[in-house]
Amino acid sequence: MANIRDVAERAGAGLGTVSRVINNSGYVSAEARLRIEKAMEELEFTPNQMARNLGRQSNNLVAIIVPNISHPFFGDYIKHAEMELYLRGYKTVVCDTMQRSDREQEFLDMLRRRAVDGIILSTHALEDEEYRKAKGPIVSMEQRLGRGIPMVCSDHPKGGRLAAQRLEERGCRYVAQFTEAGVVKPANARYVAFAEYLEARKVTVYEIPTNYNRLDFANYLEAANKLFNKQPQIDGFFGVDMAACAVLKVAHQRGIHVPEKLKVVGYDGSMITEIGPQNITAVVQPIREMAQHSVAAVVDLIENRPRLRDETILDVYLREGDTA
Amino acid sequence: MANIRDVAERAGAGLGTVSRVINNSGYVSAEARLRIEKAMEELEFTPNQMARNLGRQSNNLVAIIVPNISHPFFGDYIKHAEMELYLRGYKTVVCDTMQRSDREQEFLDMLRRRAVDGIILSTHALEDEEYRKAKGPIVSMEQRLGRGIPMVCSDHPKGGRLAAQRLEERGCRYVAQFTEAGVVKPANARYVAFAEYLEARKVTVYEIPTNYNRLDFANYLEAANKLFNKQPQIDGFFGVDMAACAVLKVAHQRGIHVPEKLKVVGYDGSMITEIGPQNITAVVQPIREMAQHSVAAVVDLIENRPRLRDETILDVYLREGDTA
Repeated sequence: MANIRDVAERAGAGLGTVSRVINNSGYVSAEARLRIEKAMEELEFTPNQMARNLGRQSNNLVAIIVPNISHPFFGDYIKHAEMELYLRGYKTVVCDTMQRSDREQEFLDMLRRRAVDGIILSTHALEDEEYRKAKGPIVSMEQRLGRGIPMVCSDHPKGGRLAAQRLEERGCRYVAQFTEAGVVKPANARYVAFAEYLEARKVTVYEIPTNYNRLDFANYLEAANKLFNKQPQIDGFFGVDMAACAVLKVAHQRGIHVPEKLKVVGYDGSMITEIGPQNITAVVQPIREMAQHSVAAVVDLIENRPRLRDETILDVYLREGDTA
Repeated sequence: MANIRDVAERAGAGLGTVSRVINNSGYVSAEARLRIEKAMEELEFTPNQMARNLGRQSNNLVAIIVPNISHPFFGDYIKHAEMELYLRGYKTVVCDTMQRSDREQEFLDMLRRRAVDGIILSTHALEDEEYRKAKGPIVSMEQRLGRGIPMVCSDHPKGGRLAAQRLEERGCRYVAQFTEAGVVKPANARYVAFAEYLEARKVTVYEIPTNYNRLDFANYLEAANKLFNKQPQIDGFFGVDMAACAVLKVAHQRGIHVPEKLKVVGYDGSMITEIGPQNITAVVQPIREMAQHSVAAVVDLIENRPRLRDETILDVYLREGDTA
C-alpha cells in the first residue's frame, strides 16, 4: 500500500508539498500539483490513507537533545540532522540541557505522551534505566544505553591513534592531552588509544582532566594556562577543537611557536579549526554522516522498520593543517 | 483567575515541573510537589483550568527560522532563545532554510493550522505580503515586515559609527568593508553610517559586495584575497566576525602584521572573535537580549497580551581586542 512518501518520491516532490496538496492548504505550483495528483492516481493512494497519514503528518517531531547548541560540533550536527529529518518529513525540536537532568526527563515525558515521535540524545544525565523505561524511539549519540536504543559514534580508538602517530612522527617527546573527568563513554577510548600508542614508544603523556560539564572556552583557557605552568617542556598537544584553540592562544601569548616548538592536533575537525590564522591539524569526525545515521535510525524506529544493528561506528581521518 | 504560570511563579518552580505535577507524570521531588500543591491551593487553581492549560501545554511550540544553524551568531541566538522559550513553557522547533523560500512557506502553513504557535524569523525569502497573510504570531529579526509583526534588531547605525571611529582614531587612511549585496534590511544602515563617518574625515572607503546567500567561510576567504589583490594599500577593515577572521587569515598568509600594518574590527562579537590567537576588536550585538526581546514578543502575541511597540532597537558597544 502506497504512503505519502511513495507519492513524494514518484512525483519528485517534497513531503511538505505533497502534504499541502492533500491538505489543500498553502501554495503549490500548478505544475507540481499536477505531478503529485498523477502520482497519487498511479499509486492508488486513497483518501482513507490520506487521513491516516495526515494524522501523523501534523505531529512529525523529533527532539534533538544536546549539552550546548552553540558549541561548533553540536551546531554542525543539528544543522545536518535538521536537513536529514526534513527530507524524511520530520521537524526538529531542539533542547539545550546544559547537563540538567530535569530537561531530559521532560522530553522523555513528551515521548511517552507522543508529543514528540522520537529523540536523538547527545546527553545522558539520567540513569540508563530511565531511557529504556521510556519505551519510545530513542537513538543515542556516543553512549550505550542498552538494547533497543541504537547508538551512533565515531571510531574513537582510531582517532586517538591517528593523533598519537602524527605527534610521534613529528618528534614529540612530551605530549599532553585534555581528558574529560568523570564521564564513561565510548569517546573516552581515544584517550586510552592515544596514551597506549605513545607510551609504547617511550613518549611521556600528561593527562589533564577538564570539566565536561563546562564546554565553554574559558574552561579550556584556564586548563591550557595550568598546563604550560606545570609542564613547560611539552612539545605536543591533543584535545577537542576548542581545547586546541585555547592551547594555541596561550602558546601565542607566551611566544611559543607552533609548529616549530609545539605541535597541536585537534579532535572533531569542526569549523573553528579552519578559521584561525593557522589551520589546525585535526582528527575529523564525520559529523554529517553521524547526522545521517542517527536520523535514519530514529526514523526507522518511529516507522516500525526492523533494524539489523544496534551500533554504528563511523570512520575518522586526520586532516592536514599547519599545526602538526 | 490564576494560570499555570502564576502557580509556577508562586511555587518558585519551572513550568515543566508544575505540568508534571498536574499531569502526574514524570519525576518531581517530594519537596517541589508540596510547594506546587500549596501554590495551587492558595491561588484556587481549579481542575477545569488545569485541563484547559494542559490542552495548550501539549503543543507549546515556537519555530525559529534561520539561514544557517551552524553560523556562530545564529548558534548563540538559538541557544539563548531556546532557554527563554523553555522558561515560558515553550519548546523550540528549528528550521535552517538555506535561503529556500519553500521552507519558510511550509512553516507559515504550520502556523495557519496551529501545528506551531508562533514563529521567529531571521530569514525573509518570501514577499512581505505572505507573512502578513499568515495572520499568526510572527516576530521578525532584522526586517520590517509590516504592522502587527514586531521587529527586534540592534542599533546598526551606532555599530557602524563605533567601528569607523575606532579605525580613524588608529590612523587608518584606506579602509575596506564587506557589504551584503542585494538585501535591503536595517543591518545595512551600518555600512552607510560607517562610510559617512569616515568619508567626512577624508578617509577612503572601499566597499566590497559579498554574497549574503553564502554565509560560509570560503566565501569570505575568497573576498579577502580579492581585496588584498586589488587594494594592497588598505590599512583598516570592518566586516562581520567571519569576514574579520578571513581577513586576518589572509593577512597572516601574506605577512601583513595586525594591528601594526592593518587594523581589523569585527561585527557581532560572537564566540569566534575570542578563540583565535588574537582577540578580535569587535562591535558586539547583544545576542542574549535579542533572544529575550524576540521571545517575549512572540509569547505576548501567542498569549494575546497587548504590545506597546512594534520595534525594539537594542544597544551595541565596541569590545576591546588585539586587532584595532
